[in-house]
Amino acid sequence: MKEPQTGAQHSKSGLSPLDSLRVVLVRTQHPGNVGATARAMKTMGLRDLVLVAPQRPPDDRSRAMASGALDVLEHMRIVETLPEALADCATAVGVSARRRGISVAVHDARNWATDWARGAADARTALVFGAERTGLTNAELALCQQAVQIPADPDYASLNLAQAVQVLAYEARMAAVGGLRGSRGRQPADHATMEGVYAHLEDMLVEVGFLDPANPRHLMRRLRRLLARATPDPVEANILRGIFSAVQKRLR
Amino acid sequence: MKEPQTGAQHSKSGLSPLDSLRVVLVRTQHPGNVGATARAMKTMGLRDLVLVAPQRPPDDRSRAMASGALDVLEHMRIVETLPEALADCATAVGVSARRRGISVAVHDARNWATDWARGAADARTALVFGAERTGLTNAELALCQQAVQIPADPDYASLNLAQAVQVLAYEARMAAVGGLRGSRGRQPADHATMEGVYAHLEDMLVEVGFLDPANPRHLMRRLRRLLARATPDPVEANILRGIFSAVQKRLR
Repeated sequence: MKEPQTGAQHSKSGLSPLDSLRVVLVRTQHPGNVGATARAMKTMGLRDLVLVAPQRPPDDRSRAMASGALDVLEHMRIVETLPEALADCATAVGVSARRRGISVAVHDARNWATDWARGAADARTALVFGAERTGLTNAELALCQQAVQIPADPDYASLNLAQAVQVLAYEARMAAVGGLRGSRGRQPADHATMEGVYAHLEDMLVEVGFLDPANPRHLMRRLRRLLARATPDPVEANILRGIFSAVQKRLR
Repeated sequence: MKEPQTGAQHSKSGLSPLDSLRVVLVRTQHPGNVGATARAMKTMGLRDLVLVAPQRPPDDRSRAMASGALDVLEHMRIVETLPEALADCATAVGVSARRRGISVAVHDARNWATDWARGAADARTALVFGAERTGLTNAELALCQQAVQIPADPDYASLNLAQAVQVLAYEARMAAVGGLRGSRGRQPADHATMEGVYAHLEDMLVEVGFLDPANPRHLMRRLRRLLARATPDPVEANILRGIFSAVQKRLR
């Protein structure tokens, strides 16, 4: 079996992609939510918090809710406009409870996290959250290249702001570092590796006669999503390709 | 292609497994956390909340944090002992930040949720959370058949109680109902279906010569985990079996 390929989870500088994920809170109403956000971030390894025009400045309630994450509050920046908060970000992702009236495709949290973790860890991404009651305005969403939604019960989809941060930070960590296995070194295979798996699978399926080479897209799209959800690590990606090769070898 | 098999996501009575998932908070210190817990539960479709010997009774702070989830608070039960809270539960799952000194295997949140969702939806399961600063005592954990941990940054793994409820409720919902696709009907294939997929994969791999029939366990264990992470729905499970059949057919 070939040497496992390096996952994309570390940038050229050796940082985790979690270091390049910023949380931006826009027009936050409750100082407690800022502190709870800092705590949620720190539990998942995020450190970069920026407030845009908070409706009330951070105060003792922020510090109380931050618990052991006071350092995140201390390093937090406060700016006046969203463009300032996003100036050094390659991608801005708007977090929205709604799906209609948004001009970019809305992804669910897990799919967004999986794609993000595979991408270049050197490019800073900002997760942008709006005010508690009103969310992001259309103008604010227009500054975002992507939108993400946390799947919730349709009858009551209103997560508390800091809870939404917690869930997204958790998904980001799971995608970048994995679960308990991740703490022992498991990292998802990178984008190039996965593209190799998909191409190899497609070739094998054509040779087996399962896939119509004139019309592969629908089935391959489904299989790509299935395999992406499995988040194979580099060893598993190689196992899959080994299986495909073995099938092809037996057929010839 | 065969008819997709029904997922196990609905009990014989037609209820979602989310209806059979109880949240138990033991010796909670802060009334606000009870309200935030109720809100977190409702956003994910959970309704059954039980408090065991709360250190302070629920009050206006609970109601304020509950936001639109007052009904969950109103239906909440308060009991004096953990055995009372678990009396009608088939399984109790202790949520713990620590991993040592626990006599049952500790699973990460996502693996627990995936297994739980595949199991019998008719059997009530309780997620048991301890007091904010101290967690569950050994005696309380001893009443649990399983333990679950939320993967977090090793330097600061201390999630706020209601945040921990939010993450676990979210994982339960994702496993039981799926993401945005779930809201359009996607449900994971049930246990029997997946066992059929694994058995068929194993047969195919032996025929291809990739798997040594005398020593299949290590590789099959890895492939089972990979496919389980993909949480195929019944249609995808059938696609996989179709691929295996096509390979076997071409080899013969």
